Amino acid sequence: MTQTSDTTSYKDIKQTVLQRIRSGEWQPDALLPNEQELAVEFSCTRTTVNRALRELADEGFLERRRKAGTRVLSAPQRQARFTIPLVRDEIEAAGGTYRYALVSQETQTAPDWLTARLALRVDQRVMHVRCMHFSTNTPFQFEDRWIVIDSVPQVEQADFSSIGPNDWLVQTVPFTNVELTFLASRADATLAGFLDVSEGEPVFTAERITWLQGQPVTFAKMYFAAGYRMSTEF
Amino acid sequence: MTQTSDTTSYKDIKQTVLQRIRSGEWQPDALLPNEQELAVEFSCTRTTVNRALRELADEGFLERRRKAGTRVLSAPQRQARFTIPLVRDEIEAAGGTYRYALVSQETQTAPDWLTARLALRVDQRVMHVRCMHFSTNTPFQFEDRWIVIDSVPQVEQADFSSIGPNDWLVQTVPFTNVELTFLASRADATLAGFLDVSEGEPVFTAERITWLQGQPVTFAKMYFAAGYRMSTEF
Repeated sequence: MTQTSDTTSYKDIKQTVLQRIRSGEWQPDALLPNEQELAVEFSCTRTTVNRALRELADEGFLERRRKAGTRVLSAPQRQARFTIPLVRDEIEAAGGTYRYALVSQETQTAPDWLTARLALRVDQRVMHVRCMHFSTNTPFQFEDRWIVIDSVPQVEQADFSSIGPNDWLVQTVPFTNVELTFLASRADATLAGFLDVSEGEPVFTAERITWLQGQPVTFAKMYFAAGYRMSTEF
Repeated sequence: MTQTSDTTSYKDIKQTVLQRIRSGEWQPDALLPNEQELAVEFSCTRTTVNRALRELADEGFLERRRKAGTRVLSAPQRQARFTIPLVRDEIEAAGGTYRYALVSQETQTAPDWLTARLALRVDQRVMHVRCMHFSTNTPFQFEDRWIVIDSVPQVEQADFSSIGPNDWLVQTVPFTNVELTFLASRADATLAGFLDVSEGEPVFTAERITWLQGQPVTFAKMYFAAGYRMSTEF
């Protein structure tokens, strides 16, 4: 960004706008002055006003509509953004050495619950892959994944003994939609073994469904080792 | 947005760019042609090219730098956005009737773990509030919250018997930074009672720290009832 000769920074404007909202000078649903008027009031460029209002809208304090102008929102809706890194990147960013291990790989008819979940046709075939991700030989994540063969026919020739199914999919399919869900689940005996926790332990779990132009591609459950925390700042 | 007379839509361009990345025609770290060149190739306006590239950058496939141009990213970094609604809105959006109940409210010296966590000065005073949020009289969330009195002095006069501390804070303090963490915890006897689950059950938990211009304002732990799932699409 180039420097402007503004005397007022966009941060000053954000602060002033927040103070006016907080003090009640600008009530919920109130229409703000337009950008040109605010630029005059704050002795700055319209670009600076625009940046301040845009950020306040992103933070959920204001609502901006092309024709209706900018309004104060009654309850700030905060959007948290979680970057979803590849598991290898997450482990290496934390200073660990990544190791992948395939547990099992087999084609099968989609189980009933998966057929329902992904709205598959009856008896569609899927590739079922189970694998482990280690951080410096400590269990980090157990991954249980199904890939819809009709959506990605080349998966039948894929060999997941040295490349993880997620890495393979990222290289192969430009998925367009993702549904991501976080939940707490309970370690059964199998999961407890893979993650080296006691049976019954709480396990932070992410479920991910991806589609390519409306077609379901893959469903994955990712179970994280004890103490895992997914964190973001905004 | 006004309609352009483009023959190619920004979605077509996104699809073509993704195909070139997928086929390896444009390798990771490769520099893309500039927007003007792409506009000529695709017979569309530069605005349309810009929108396609901007969305692909938001989706983590490209990296855009003002002077260096647009490059292919090696591993797509996907950003999931979670809207963090007020608990009342979340319950009402799901068709439930919201009810709030205060459990306890007291001022105290910050416990050592909180002093460490928020980098407080020794012996700083905090307001400790515990409360329940019900959906049609079913436990939905137990909230355990500390508010730093030096940061929000008026909290000493606040009465949380009819308004929840989060609603009160939203109306009172324009917090500027939030750290949000999701984890799986285990219900101890107290929590099991509040949430009506068995002791030891996995409990989806959100921790939230908010600051106002560098000063810690509040730390909250929110424990969700059994089966809670936090979901988003992107």
